[in-house]
This record gives sequence, structure tokens and C-alpha cells, in this order.
Amino acid sequence: MPDELIPIAGNGLLNRRSLLKAGIVMGSVGALPQANAQGQLRPIWAQSPGAGVSGYGQPSAHEAHVQRGAFSLQVGTNGSGASRSPLQHLRGTITPNGVHFERHHSGVPDIDPEQHSLTIHGLVDRPLKFSVNNLMRYPMVSSIKFLECSGNSGVNLRPEPAKLDCANIHGLVSGSEWTGIQLSTLLDEAGIQSQAKWVIAEGSDAAKMNRSVPLDKMLDDAILAFYQNGERLRPEQGYPMRLFLPGYEGNASVKWLSGLRLSSQPAMSRQETSKYTDLLKDGRSQMFTFPMQIKSVITSPSPGLSLAGKGFYEISGIAWSGQGSVKRVEISADGGRTWAEAELDGPVLPQALTRFRTAWQWNGGACVLLSRAYDDHGVQPTRAELLAARGEQFFYHYNAIQSWQVNGNGSLENCYA
Amino acid sequence: MPDELIPIAGNGLLNRRSLLKAGIVMGSVGALPQANAQGQLRPIWAQSPGAGVSGYGQPSAHEAHVQRGAFSLQVGTNGSGASRSPLQHLRGTITPNGVHFERHHSGVPDIDPEQHSLTIHGLVDRPLKFSVNNLMRYPMVSSIKFLECSGNSGVNLRPEPAKLDCANIHGLVSGSEWTGIQLSTLLDEAGIQSQAKWVIAEGSDAAKMNRSVPLDKMLDDAILAFYQNGERLRPEQGYPMRLFLPGYEGNASVKWLSGLRLSSQPAMSRQETSKYTDLLKDGRSQMFTFPMQIKSVITSPSPGLSLAGKGFYEISGIAWSGQGSVKRVEISADGGRTWAEAELDGPVLPQALTRFRTAWQWNGGACVLLSRAYDDHGVQPTRAELLAARGEQFFYHYNAIQSWQVNGNGSLENCYA
Repeated sequence: MPDELIPIAGNGLLNRRSLLKAGIVMGSVGALPQANAQGQLRPIWAQSPGAGVSGYGQPSAHEAHVQRGAFSLQVGTNGSGASRSPLQHLRGTITPNGVHFERHHSGVPDIDPEQHSLTIHGLVDRPLKFSVNNLMRYPMVSSIKFLECSGNSGVNLRPEPAKLDCANIHGLVSGSEWTGIQLSTLLDEAGIQSQAKWVIAEGSDAAKMNRSVPLDKMLDDAILAFYQNGERLRPEQGYPMRLFLPGYEGNASVKWLSGLRLSSQPAMSRQETSKYTDLLKDGRSQMFTFPMQIKSVITSPSPGLSLAGKGFYEISGIAWSGQGSVKRVEISADGGRTWAEAELDGPVLPQALTRFRTAWQWNGGACVLLSRAYDDHGVQPTRAELLAARGEQFFYHYNAIQSWQVNGNGSLENCYA
Repeated sequence: MPDELIPIAGNGLLNRRSLLKAGIVMGSVGALPQANAQGQLRPIWAQSPGAGVSGYGQPSAHEAHVQRGAFSLQVGTNGSGASRSPLQHLRGTITPNGVHFERHHSGVPDIDPEQHSLTIHGLVDRPLKFSVNNLMRYPMVSSIKFLECSGNSGVNLRPEPAKLDCANIHGLVSGSEWTGIQLSTLLDEAGIQSQAKWVIAEGSDAAKMNRSVPLDKMLDDAILAFYQNGERLRPEQGYPMRLFLPGYEGNASVKWLSGLRLSSQPAMSRQETSKYTDLLKDGRSQMFTFPMQIKSVITSPSPGLSLAGKGFYEISGIAWSGQGSVKRVEISADGGRTWAEAELDGPVLPQALTRFRTAWQWNGGACVLLSRAYDDHGVQPTRAELLAARGEQFFYHYNAIQSWQVNGNGSLENCYA
């Protein structure tokens, strides 16, 4: 290793500024390009004009492998279930709408916006029914937020580490710019009665998926979302409108929203009793555990990718917290013995994906990579700590540190370090 | 108008906080929903399970009109030219990749990333050639930035206002999260010789589009971009890689990048001599006028949309500056006689689209809407001021205040107020 490379933790983690001084060169030193007046040396694609403009573009055919994957389908349905974002192939903090993760409880309804409406009823002074067109006239706000299914990463509760790729283990999280009406505006118009403490949100899918949301959350930062990354919601994300609850488990951000019923009590519906509850060590269940905790995952390198020989790489990943902003991320390349602080791409936004990264010189040997993120509430637990605290019967809100085993041949796999 | 509505400028511009107090209600007061145990009253789409998960999602068929449009095609080509973002149908600050504007000079090449490379040569110590795979190992940074063609909005130089929609007039601007390698990293590896002042960037399309970029800009904040909004660049945006120069006219961010030649002089190529220069009043031309100036446009309402009767609306639009951050946006609903300060959705990022908005009570009468944005260098000029300063023979870098005529029937059209 050249003298200029300053290690900041064990097994090749480097101070990135020193990279420049070290003259790490992955380009080949070549001859000057030849004059090429006749164009014979041009690549085939530059020998004649290319394709024209188009109305709605698509990814390159060379990127056809970058798809939502790891489908979890429910037996007996025609495709209900989940699909996951291909995290190991993405970079940055925005997830393209085409590969935002999906979770449906009775498939994707084909809703005609002219026939759809939102009714606000229950403990209100004035029950109100809104057409989509009327709602589109209201003030809207935009912000970049993550959405995560509370079942994300739960596969890591298995006794042995599942040999799945990064998307399959952690791909039920995505990041978008969401734009919509502040729920407080609409609830204020309906007139909230003093006994109201909960709002039962109901979707217009065949499952009539519903969840109970604390009224305080609705008044704080909930929005009725119409746009995702600038365009109208995709059908699988709730077109023409969905509830969006920053930092809360995804299931509560009810899609295809058609009703909001104000109530003094939660609905105690299927999705908050038999599902989306946290089984405790003593056999009781904790309900309404909405916020997603601090979490991170190294996406590159990760299972689904491989290293092409020893040498320089950037370790890159995403961190997020439903309870505020990511304060710090640390990376280890030696199985957790030593840690280096990662760089964060700014601006670091609350309840949004944050991209972290660190320079790394791989010596070609087997090793274990880990990341751990911090927010104002603390640091991600190890898997052992999480199991000790919560028992082994829970499923939702798994946020332990992820370890990736790097093998000498450059392949990667899930491991419990 | 209820007493609680506090006007902040003429013709219905309102303090948004007062909207809540005013009890503006666009929902209809309705009866409570009926019990529906048999499900007969369910909408058709909720009567049976919907579609399943998918690999790469698409917009709703009900949004099929939201496409790039206003194609400007070059005669004799198979589709080279420009397509524009449908600004009046978008909301927020991110433009989905499918409708990011396009500008091609010889169509979209179908580049095989395995066969593509980048050569850095000219006034360097070590000419270097990089494969795409090797470049993918380098450190990358992400940031949200706009991209605007310097010919955007030039149609407003016509003596009479063109009766085109908002996209057609202003749609050569879009916003994305761009991720790539800092050019300074790669140039440092090649070794910059002291005589080098310019970098000639060349694309691998059939036009071999090239532009000369000041070396200082390359070292300051230029990136070699691989990802847009999280996924690999779309073919029409330069797949597998492009130059990206924050705040500069779009043409200089050369797509399908294959070469960077360091030079003591600019190349004086077609795209910087016969095109992309600013003709001055005295007949001389100003060259290398890269930064895009402060600008704004009201996207809703705007031509291409219409108002559905008098009453409440939100006026919403985008503002941007290639020379820093948007400091302030003002809106007028009375043809420029009085102005109200608009709200800005944060975070306001440098060289990024900024969403502004103001509450508005339309009285149903004809009127003229305008927006004007400020950055650290000042405010947008009026059209008359711009023409007085620059003459009537220029074409690029048109950034005057846009006026929209609202007609009594709710239609909108371009006007010169």
C-alpha cells in the first residue's frame, strides 16, 4: 500500500482524501487516440444516427436485470404479495418509481380517478366527500421520505443466515419525493370532535385494507399523497391517492385511500391484530408500534454483486431512521473489530434515505463487512442484542446490523457476524 | 370573501394560514357511508383481486397523457431533436426519468457498456483509458440538480406570444438526483499539465457532439454521471455515462461521454460557434456563456390545464438558478401591479428546482398571473427589460418573467404582460 493511503480502520478502510494523493489508477495508460477522419474506427452505434425522441422513456436493454424481484406471492391469489427494490443495483437516495417496492394485500386495483372519492366521517362536525378533481385544487407540500415495510429484513430471524441477495433481504425499503395535501387541512375542514383520538384509514382495494392511525400523527405530518417523484402515483403505489405517514411502517400508509373515519378507539382490524404486531418474549403482543427504527445496509458490494479482483472499491450503502435524521454511520471491514466513520452525501434529510460511503482497498482475502447507523435515539443493535431484547418470536421491525461475508473469489453472502 | 381570508396581494392572493380559518370546503357535505356487508356498493375495481406484482412498473393508463411532448424534430433525421417535460402535469421538484426532457443531435445511440470506454488525453502526464466496469469502482457523489437546455423558452422571443402549452414553452428543464464520479478524481490521476485550461468533452453519438469546458469547472463540481434518480442513466440521457455540469447550459453536459481532451484552448466546435452562442446587439457573439440564470414559471395553473370554475386554487410552480440557490419567489395575480411572496418547499438546494406556491381565490374574471424569482445576483427581468438589454436577435438564455393570461372561461394562454 502506498504511503499516502491513510488507513482509518482495519482491513483496508481508507481516508478518501488520501486516495487522490495515492494515485490509484484503474485506467490503463494508453496511446493517444488516432485521427479518425473516415470514421472506420467508430463503434457501431456511432456510425449512423440513433433512435429518435420518445414520449415516455425506458431503461437501457443492457440494464434489463434491474427489476423489482424477490417476489413473495400469496398462495391462491393472482399476484398479491410483495416485490422488492433491487438495492444492490441502485445508487443515490431516490428510488425510481418503476422499482419502488410493492406490498399488496389483494392486488393492484385499476381505479378510475373520475369515479373515486375520499370520505371523511365519524367523529367530525361535517362528514365530507371529496372528488379527486376537487382535492387537486388544495395546497400541496413536497418532501423526500423513505417508505419501509415493517416486515423488511425479517428473514434474518432465521437460525441460519439465508443465502439471498441484498434486495431479497432488505429490499422492502425505497425513497421518493412525495407530494400531497397535509391531512390537517382536510380534517380541519371536517371539524374534529373532541372525543376523536384515532383515524381509521381505509383503502379501495378488494381487501379493503384498513389501519388505525393516531389523530396526532395525522395532524402532525401526514399527507394525502398524489405525486411520487414528480408524477402521479403509480397504480401499485396507490393511484390516484394514498395516505403517507413519514417514518411509520409502510402498511399504515394506506394505498388507494377512500375513507378516513375519526374514532375514539382504533378499529382493531386484521392488519393490526393478527398482523403487524410485535410478539414479546412473554407471549403478549405489542400493538401500534409505528415508527421504523435506525437502520443501515451496505448495498455495494453486497450479495447479488461480486468483486472483480483485489484493489480499490467504494463501500456504499443507505441508512435511514423513522425517528429523525441519520447522525452518523460507521463501517467495519474486519468483522466489527475496528470501525471507520463513513461520509454522508448531503443534505441529510429527516426520515429519508441517506447515502453513506467509504474508500476501501480489498486485499483479496475473506473478510466481513458491516455498517452501523446512529440517530438521536442511539445505534443499531447487533443481531444478538436484538434477539436478547426482543426474543426470537417477533417478526416486524428487525433493524439489526447486517454483516456481509466477502469470500476470496469476490462473491458475497449473508452471514451472522 | 370571508373575513378570515387575509389578502396578501391583489386579485385573490391569500395568506395560506388563513385558509384553515376560512373553512374553505371543496368536499360536499354528505350522509354517512352506508353499511355494506354484501359488497354490492363496492366500486368495480374492489370487487375482485387486482393485478399482481411486476418487475418494472409503469404509470396508470389514466395518466397516459403525461408524456414528453412538443417534439422539435430536425428535418432529414430519424427523430433527432428535442422533447419536453410535461411541466403542467408534474408536481414537486424531481422529474421522473421517463419524462426528463431530451435533446439529441444525432439520435440516441444504443451503446453496449462492455464495449464503451472513456479516454483522458491531451495535456496530461498519463493518457488513460477506462472501461465502464473499472469506473464503477470509483467513489461517487449524489446531489439533486436541474438540467436546462439554453434554448429553453426561446419561443418567447417571437413578436407575438406563441399559443403553446407550458411544456412546449418551458419544458426543456428537468430535475434529478445525479450520481457519479467527481471529475477532479479522474483528472488528478491522469496528471494535469500546467498549460491546460480547457477540457474538450466528446460524446459517442453519431454526431460526435463535443463541447469545451473550462478546466476550473471540471475541477470544481463536474461529475461523470452514471445514475439518475437512483438507477443507471436512461439511453436518452447518455447511458452508460455522461458529463454533468451543475448549473451550466445542458448542451455542455455531453452525453454518451467517450473522451476528455485537455487543451490550452477551446475546440471552437460547431456547438460552440454556430450554435450555443449569444448574438449581441452590435452583431458580435458572446461565446461560452455557460451558467443558466435565475428563472421561474407557474406550472399550475398554466396553458395545458384549465380552471374548473371560480373559487380556491393553489398557484404552484418551479424556480431555479444555475448560479446558486433561489432566495425568494413572488407571485402576482393582477398583471404585475401587486406581488405576494410565495412559500418555498424546503430544502432549497443550490442549482436545483425549487417548488413555490401561494393560495389563490379566483373570482372568475380574466386576469394575468406572473412569477418572478430572485437569487444572489438579482431578480428575473421582464421581457421588455431583457430585450432592451440583449436586443432581439439572441436566442439562448431567455429567462424573462412569464405571464399567463387567465380567461373568464378558465382557459389559460401565453401572453406578454
